[in-house]
Amino acid sequence: MKVDNLSDLFVHTLKDIYFAENQIIKALPKMAKAADSKELARAFDHHLEETKEQVARLDQIFKMLGKRAEGEKCPAIEGILKEGEDLMKHIKDPDTRDAAMLAAAQAVEHYEITRYGTLISWGGLLDLPDVVKLLSMTLKEEYGADSKLSKLAESKLNREAA
Amino acid sequence: MKVDNLSDLFVHTLKDIYFAENQIIKALPKMAKAADSKELARAFDHHLEETKEQVARLDQIFKMLGKRAEGEKCPAIEGILKEGEDLMKHIKDPDTRDAAMLAAAQAVEHYEITRYGTLISWGGLLDLPDVVKLLSMTLKEEYGADSKLSKLAESKLNREAA
Repeated sequence: MKVDNLSDLFVHTLKDIYFAENQIIKALPKMAKAADSKELARAFDHHLEETKEQVARLDQIFKMLGKRAEGEKCPAIEGILKEGEDLMKHIKDPDTRDAAMLAAAQAVEHYEITRYGTLISWGGLLDLPDVVKLLSMTLKEEYGADSKLSKLAESKLNREAA
Repeated sequence: MKVDNLSDLFVHTLKDIYFAENQIIKALPKMAKAADSKELARAFDHHLEETKEQVARLDQIFKMLGKRAEGEKCPAIEGILKEGEDLMKHIKDPDTRDAAMLAAAQAVEHYEITRYGTLISWGGLLDLPDVVKLLSMTLKEEYGADSKLSKLAESKLNREAA
């Protein structure tokens, strides 16, 4: 890791979220498979498609910056996903497991929201309007995914688990 | 870990955030010391005091539930804090380091926001209004801390780093 200025930090954080998105692509199909609620499984499947688009956007951004698209190990997302996976494996009751997976997915969304928010703020300072435009599209989707999960939690899953 | 129902999951998640808050109490003084900007150091110091209050609230909640206040290893917060610490150590330029620490602190806030949001939703379903009241006080503070950091980032720190 060599970070001398904000521009380096920006690229470092892009690599961090690139790694994170690719880990999420691996995790979502397992979560969809483990979900008891069809609605929750559909939400995970839908977010998988969105996430693939988001990775394509990151590829485009790396290209615009003349950098190689590559991930950098991100202990944060590994920890967040590990926690969700442990619960998924240990909880036998399907409704309780769905509630736990939903909460884990929201923790993932919040990690992405904070990282994309930071990248957008730095991208503005670094005068990269086209990059900011792409990042903002992704941030909007992450907020949408989080709010969809909140609604699902309030309306059905948590009630079943309670 | 034994999680058979939503009530168990609630207590498990309380232990997770109890562990997380205590890790944050250890991290914040190091971050305040490493901060170049006095404003940022003050924000970390202030949040340390808030975090101690939040732990006291969690102690109270465990008591209300007749459970022993104890943490459960939370790989998510460990990962989030590790990432921030790595950057703190590697970045020599003070303004860039401040920008990275600020972003790390916002990632911590977002982790807390998602966990307390989930606990409040589950606490409502489990009919624990007094517990929800305490958790809501904390959630409000976490939103406040995040928004304060955003303003600091926009107004000064990131501009200096750029």
